[in-house]
Amino acid sequence: MKASYYEGNKTFDVKEKELKAPEKDEVRIKVAYCGICGSDVHIYHGNMDNRVKIPQTVGHEMSGTIDAVGSEVKGYKVGDKVTVRPLDNRLEDASDKGFSHISKKLKFIGIDSEGALQQYWNIFGFTLHHLPDSIDLKLSALIEPLAVACHDVRRSGVKEGEVAVVLGGGPIGTLVAMVARSKGAKVIISELNPSRIELLKSMGFDVVDTKKTNLLEHVNKVSNGALADVVFEVAGVQPTVSTMSEIGGLRARLVVVAIHPVPREVNLHMLFWREQSIIGCRVYEKEDFDTAIEHVSKMDLPLEKIISNVRPLSEIQKLFEEIVANPSGMKYLVDCQN
Amino acid sequence: MKASYYEGNKTFDVKEKELKAPEKDEVRIKVAYCGICGSDVHIYHGNMDNRVKIPQTVGHEMSGTIDAVGSEVKGYKVGDKVTVRPLDNRLEDASDKGFSHISKKLKFIGIDSEGALQQYWNIFGFTLHHLPDSIDLKLSALIEPLAVACHDVRRSGVKEGEVAVVLGGGPIGTLVAMVARSKGAKVIISELNPSRIELLKSMGFDVVDTKKTNLLEHVNKVSNGALADVVFEVAGVQPTVSTMSEIGGLRARLVVVAIHPVPREVNLHMLFWREQSIIGCRVYEKEDFDTAIEHVSKMDLPLEKIISNVRPLSEIQKLFEEIVANPSGMKYLVDCQN
Repeated sequence: MKASYYEGNKTFDVKEKELKAPEKDEVRIKVAYCGICGSDVHIYHGNMDNRVKIPQTVGHEMSGTIDAVGSEVKGYKVGDKVTVRPLDNRLEDASDKGFSHISKKLKFIGIDSEGALQQYWNIFGFTLHHLPDSIDLKLSALIEPLAVACHDVRRSGVKEGEVAVVLGGGPIGTLVAMVARSKGAKVIISELNPSRIELLKSMGFDVVDTKKTNLLEHVNKVSNGALADVVFEVAGVQPTVSTMSEIGGLRARLVVVAIHPVPREVNLHMLFWREQSIIGCRVYEKEDFDTAIEHVSKMDLPLEKIISNVRPLSEIQKLFEEIVANPSGMKYLVDCQN
Repeated sequence: MKASYYEGNKTFDVKEKELKAPEKDEVRIKVAYCGICGSDVHIYHGNMDNRVKIPQTVGHEMSGTIDAVGSEVKGYKVGDKVTVRPLDNRLEDASDKGFSHISKKLKFIGIDSEGALQQYWNIFGFTLHHLPDSIDLKLSALIEPLAVACHDVRRSGVKEGEVAVVLGGGPIGTLVAMVARSKGAKVIISELNPSRIELLKSMGFDVVDTKKTNLLEHVNKVSNGALADVVFEVAGVQPTVSTMSEIGGLRARLVVVAIHPVPREVNLHMLFWREQSIIGCRVYEKEDFDTAIEHVSKMDLPLEKIISNVRPLSEIQKLFEEIVANPSGMKYLVDCQN
């Protein structure tokens, strides 16, 4: 079999690796597709060299088919289509209060341990989710990021008819917008990149190019003066943090999806005055994976549109170079069998 | 009758005023006691001269007895003990989504219009809450600030057995601590002022003097490593904003009670990592007044302890001077009949 390895210095290698039988609590998955996450790009840039162990196989947005089953894994058989919820919460304790997915000693599979960017992947049975036989395995590689979006939207509590603004129309922002729209929200996306704006419009979204249009005025108009019920901050910069308070109406839920490496100036007076809430969201829980799988099965979201390119595992280095060179790109997948 | 007037320049006068019959939608209240709010002190300092109309009678934390009833006011009669929920939401519209208490054109009675620091007060019937005949009218002047605390605690969702930290043990922080404790929370208060620390300890609170004790370590110990479930930020300064994120555990609710005149640096990475929420709270809703009235009726909170002094209306100028001179003071009341 072949496996890719992050070698440091912006370098991925693809090498031969021995096919191993799964341990008793593992399955071996024949990996179909694996998407590239923003965190994988951070790894490529060397920003996470303190967490990965060079050389390491990374990747966690995957789909595949079970190829072998460890003796203690129940409910799965060879040939089952599956995806992996890449959270290793085995060190969870009582002080985590049941919040397994953010437990203090959580390990993220594919970063803190070996990932899916290889032909076969031996992984714990407890991470598995069944996929229906009829599901498209390419789109199924989007289940993990879609589960992030389902989690964000669920935490927002957005309801039918509410106005939801997504600040930043990258891959996660777009998935959040799709899921919020599927809940019946009136979705507005703010984005600056012209290619992304075109793509989002082709999906029928109300997109505001903030270089050309005043977002506050637009939100005020769409909401008949009530402003936004929900704002998703998916850009991760100070200007959008300031914007979220301004465009959020009374009791607005301001959902922080992006990662902010430094503290941000937040308008706590507006938070008080309008009784807004700011809600932090990280990864997903089991039910968010279930919801994401349902969307991919039903094909009720325009997921295909956000796949910018698919390359074989053998071209993984070129793929990362392509991602870095193209800031307009959305989701990139690796075909792990080729 | 006598009424006090804010005259600008840190000056209150007490003058004779003609007793007037209430309008048809008003009652006339014989005011018993009126507490001095932090906002009244701001008015005294001239910080709100853009909102008050000099000379103006201010004051909104009051108790009293109905003295005359307008023809259209139903459900109240002369002799009824009452308090006023000082929110004038008559300009509320559909875009306020039913959030009357924070509606965009809300007027705050006693600041944006005439208040209670006088012997008799003519006020809209819709602002009234009945008080039981047996209630103590002096303690009833604490209902309005106590309703603030009830609102904050209700918005926090704090439950029995949870660890709640109150950052700042002034009047509102102390009321928040009392109400949170009445819900069964394990309450920790952080405070720097030695007199306030003594007072809070005399009420049986676990008080941390952050000059002497590491608050994070203390919260970690009390919570068996889970950190705080709820943090109330009642100090209104950058250091406590930074502290709230740090001491809040997984899914902690960080309740912003204080008013922050400028944007604050907020640790949005911690918010994301621990899935914390920051919840803005302003004034109260009807049910918070009902809860506050119930507490005062039942006498189940040590409210008497936070009354620093009571002075007659005739000494209102001296009272404001006393408040400003004594940063250790808690709640000051005016006896409006003397």
